[in-house]
Amino acid sequence: MDQFRNIGLIGRLGSVQVIDTVRRINRFLSQQGYSVILDDGIANVMPGHSAQVSTAKMMRQSCDLVIVVGGDGSLLGAARALAGSDVPVLGVNRGRLGFLTDISPNTAEAEILEVLKGKYVSEYRFLIGALVRRNGEPIGTGLALNDIVLHPGKSTRMISFELNIEGQFVNSQRSDGLIVATPTGSTAYALSAGGPIMHPKLDAVVLVPMYPHTLSSRPIVVDGNSEIKILIGEDNQTYPHISCDGQTHINCAPGDTVTISKKPQKLRLIHPESHDFYQICREKLGWSGHLGGF
Amino acid sequence: MDQFRNIGLIGRLGSVQVIDTVRRINRFLSQQGYSVILDDGIANVMPGHSAQVSTAKMMRQSCDLVIVVGGDGSLLGAARALAGSDVPVLGVNRGRLGFLTDISPNTAEAEILEVLKGKYVSEYRFLIGALVRRNGEPIGTGLALNDIVLHPGKSTRMISFELNIEGQFVNSQRSDGLIVATPTGSTAYALSAGGPIMHPKLDAVVLVPMYPHTLSSRPIVVDGNSEIKILIGEDNQTYPHISCDGQTHINCAPGDTVTISKKPQKLRLIHPESHDFYQICREKLGWSGHLGGF
Amino acid sequence: MDQFRNIGLIGRLGSVQVIDTVRRINRFLSQQGYSVILDDGIANVMPGHSAQVSTAKMMRQSCDLVIVVGGDGSLLGAARALAGSDVPVLGVNRGRLGFLTDISPNTAEAEILEVLKGKYVSEYRFLIGALVRRNGEPIGTGLALNDIVLHPGKSTRMISFELNIEGQFVNSQRSDGLIVATPTGSTAYALSAGGPIMHPKLDAVVLVPMYPHTLSSRPIVVDGNSEIKILIGEDNQTYPHISCDGQTHINCAPGDTVTISKKPQKLRLIHPESHDFYQICREKLGWSGHLGGF
Amino acid sequence: MDQFRNIGLIGRLGSVQVIDTVRRINRFLSQQGYSVILDDGIANVMPGHSAQVSTAKMMRQSCDLVIVVGGDGSLLGAARALAGSDVPVLGVNRGRLGFLTDISPNTAEAEILEVLKGKYVSEYRFLIGALVRRNGEPIGTGLALNDIVLHPGKSTRMISFELNIEGQFVNSQRSDGLIVATPTGSTAYALSAGGPIMHPKLDAVVLVPMYPHTLSSRPIVVDGNSEIKILIGEDNQTYPHISCDGQTHINCAPGDTVTISKKPQKLRLIHPESHDFYQICREKLGWSGHLGGF
Repeated sequence: MDQFRNIGLIGRLGSVQVIDTVRRINRFLSQQGYSVILDDGIANVMPGHSAQVSTAKMMRQSCDLVIVVGGDGSLLGAARALAGSDVPVLGVNRGRLGFLTDISPNTAEAEILEVLKGKYVSEYRFLIGALVRRNGEPIGTGLALNDIVLHPGKSTRMISFELNIEGQFVNSQRSDGLIVATPTGSTAYALSAGGPIMHPKLDAVVLVPMYPHTLSSRPIVVDGNSEIKILIGEDNQTYPHISCDGQTHINCAPGDTVTISKKPQKLRLIHPESHDFYQICREKLGWSGHLGGF
Repeated sequence: MDQFRNIGLIGRLGSVQVIDTVRRINRFLSQQGYSVILDDGIANVMPGHSAQVSTAKMMRQSCDLVIVVGGDGSLLGAARALAGSDVPVLGVNRGRLGFLTDISPNTAEAEILEVLKGKYVSEYRFLIGALVRRNGEPIGTGLALNDIVLHPGKSTRMISFELNIEGQFVNSQRSDGLIVATPTGSTAYALSAGGPIMHPKLDAVVLVPMYPHTLSSRPIVVDGNSEIKILIGEDNQTYPHISCDGQTHINCAPGDTVTISKKPQKLRLIHPESHDFYQICREKLGWSGHLGGF
Repeated sequence: MDQFRNIGLIGRLGSVQVIDTVRRINRFLSQQGYSVILDDGIANVMPGHSAQVSTAKMMRQSCDLVIVVGGDGSLLGAARALAGSDVPVLGVNRGRLGFLTDISPNTAEAEILEVLKGKYVSEYRFLIGALVRRNGEPIGTGLALNDIVLHPGKSTRMISFELNIEGQFVNSQRSDGLIVATPTGSTAYALSAGGPIMHPKLDAVVLVPMYPHTLSSRPIVVDGNSEIKILIGEDNQTYPHISCDGQTHINCAPGDTVTISKKPQKLRLIHPESHDFYQICREKLGWSGHLGGF
Repeated sequence: MDQFRNIGLIGRLGSVQVIDTVRRINRFLSQQGYSVILDDGIANVMPGHSAQVSTAKMMRQSCDLVIVVGGDGSLLGAARALAGSDVPVLGVNRGRLGFLTDISPNTAEAEILEVLKGKYVSEYRFLIGALVRRNGEPIGTGLALNDIVLHPGKSTRMISFELNIEGQFVNSQRSDGLIVATPTGSTAYALSAGGPIMHPKLDAVVLVPMYPHTLSSRPIVVDGNSEIKILIGEDNQTYPHISCDGQTHINCAPGDTVTISKKPQKLRLIHPESHDFYQICREKLGWSGHLGGF
């Protein structure tokens, strides 16, 4: 069991409720004798907080645990900052249950206390990375916990590209783009785009074509260690983007190649002991609970 | 490299072209000095064939290689008969390219000759099994290379059932049924039903809900070793069926439980060296080939 | 404004709550001085009811208004019995809101009273009919408010058939069947099968292919007056069924033709004045209500 | 029967084959004694053509017939220029068959000659228009034969908006946008996005949600005369675009309203007598032709 002493606290900016919850958790942890390190962004909007301040990235050295308050989007940012550090991350949602932020703000203190007592489950989620090359030379990289998306810069233009997996040519596509999602990301954007749900423990990635011109294009699930290569067609009249978790971007040009593959760094995510993936699916997706008869 | 001497030959019944192809392959193999063992079904409709005769099941003891002539459906039957035996199976399609039967009848002799010379690729495909229990007692089992499908006996009735994966409750569904497919089966019925394509090497199964009443029900991909348990609702007014590869069936009743899991026995499938999974996808699904620019 | 005096009362069989609601409505209407005519099915399980009894079909002559208590399925049966009569039908659901049965049992008396006072909206819903011919001779007919479905008798067999619309050849399909749905039926089975929602006032039918072998087969929406003709392939090894509203069935054979077209008879459906189609969509499908900002 | 004397000729820019085909048709028509008026764009890149020159828009006054050489996209531009004029438009594709451009370049002269002799079918296709209002004041309008699309300006941001149809509130959506398509446009972008095919003669529009956050959002088909109103959420952090046929654009802001409705002006489209909508579907979508048995 981990001993958590120095606890990082990150909050989504732009929401009064988030600041309020961060303040409450900060006070609670301090009262319990823990050392709190505040993310510099949220610290700025919390005058008089009396805690240490750090960037999210530096928390990998100073913290034993990082708590993120916000939506799943906030946790994605923290994940990219902390991946590979083995510092566990715990998510507190700001109202609506998330797949990654599964502690409710109303009961945050009690639930965090349980985690601090060692009553938690811990799991590793893998990240994927993108490397864009122009004329063979690297021009940009990106990291994602959920998904890496190829899409047109101007949103009404189709992109044409070739897809290779593990060195094998798959097909060429004319479409609005391609989503490459991890199991973690399979319940996010990829799901809206028609991809399957993948259990978080599965070692796989899914490639979801976006509004493909060829109607028989379908999501493809491949081993998580597969190297995915996208060749952006020379004839594109648009300069496509690569988007990582919808948060960081790389500008591409016709003729570029994009290589997407699993990164060695993982995110360590922790949950209360009651955590249940399928229960979150039921709540967020409106699935039915038990039949009367059982 | 395997030495093939005794070669089983299985053909789909009911097609003149299949008999013709089987006859040609039989003659060719005999001329080349191989010992041919004919499946008893096809032997019956090939008077004067002069070969030994055996059931498909017995070929696991007498053959070093089994050649199946027909569609993917014929190969499914052979797969269930030969799984676990390590006897390799080679498929010759009867006209239309199949995902499993990828030798063309027109060039069958030349392609088979290459295989006999050792120029082939070999892979193992896993099978899944179903076990139906009533009041705790086993009442039926089934085996499938492609898929195990729960569907209503009368086809216009919905079924209600509960789904558990690895001991965790997932949801209850009211629907036309559920398809549990292997990667091999992901390009068959499950694909028509909206499931993703899974690469043959992936160790996973997909659960595809059939016309679910809850519109947010989606295909779920889980680890291939997961135990899937279906509890058939007590309140069903229909007696559902379990269908294995669409070929063998088990009759169920309200209250039964169906457990689906990977079997230890695998099918050994061989292909010509030129075999390319994505090329078959392109041909069968009408995907586009290379862009002009590359 | 209609004057309602003789009111038919139909209830779904097999539910204690339905009987209870029918009993309450019967008592209420009698107390208010209306003459109640009970459906013979429900009358049988309501000893001591003291009302007149009739078949649903005969209510077209004896009633000014028919109230159906149950789910949308119960109303479908009443619709086929009363279509073309101009007798309005009002639906009381048995707990869960329906698209057709939009009066809640909890407030049934008050809502019915409003309707009886003339505070209601009235609309006509069209029905479609199927005519099956063998060697040119009619062998069966059917009527549907929601949908007419072609499906295999044995549910694990594909059907092959040719589709013609308004005398034009559309395509041939190998699939699990075809759903032809009215706007009324577009929110029922056709929706689970991937069809679009059609507004009840639209004069159109949708043809939804069921798990088609050809992945580019898509739902087709055509004018409501179109004649749809299905030619069941001679080579089918199965004897398909035609199912009307999932309630009545016609057995077909290879080579039969099925003609589906709009019937001149319409159903007159009435609702409380507050009726709102999109609100029912929001409630039943979990759509979101107003944004905060408006 | 129309007498065609003055024939407009429009060609897609940027393709040598198109210029070649325009040149051939120009020569052919001149030899046959017709007066040809060239679109000013294509005239610029055809030195020495000796024909009159005009804008596409002015052809509504000078021409009896306009021939468009290019893809469906080229015809969309001509349609917006000529809608309401009753001048018929004939499309010659530049290689790949289109839904709107159904004359093959290889047989263009012969097919055009037949049309000039009066052997053609004529139909009217309706257009839809968009009107964007800010604080109640109109700030932009657009016209489309295929579709009007609301999408985020930056393509990785969701939009939130409210949807009203015929004055009734439908729902609020968080998504990548919304496609409003005519029957003509139902086989274009809307089809890739999961919308149904609508027969060209149907008087309806379809609203297709783009990657909606709510998985139960589905395409909705409503009467062609419906007024569709989109209220762009005040809380959007993005400035959405309205795109007409993917060719003209209006920039919107949070709080704007977009009203989409049928325009009184129609496009008159003509085809060779052999024109068959479903045959184009079969060719372009890979649908199957007749079964063996018929």
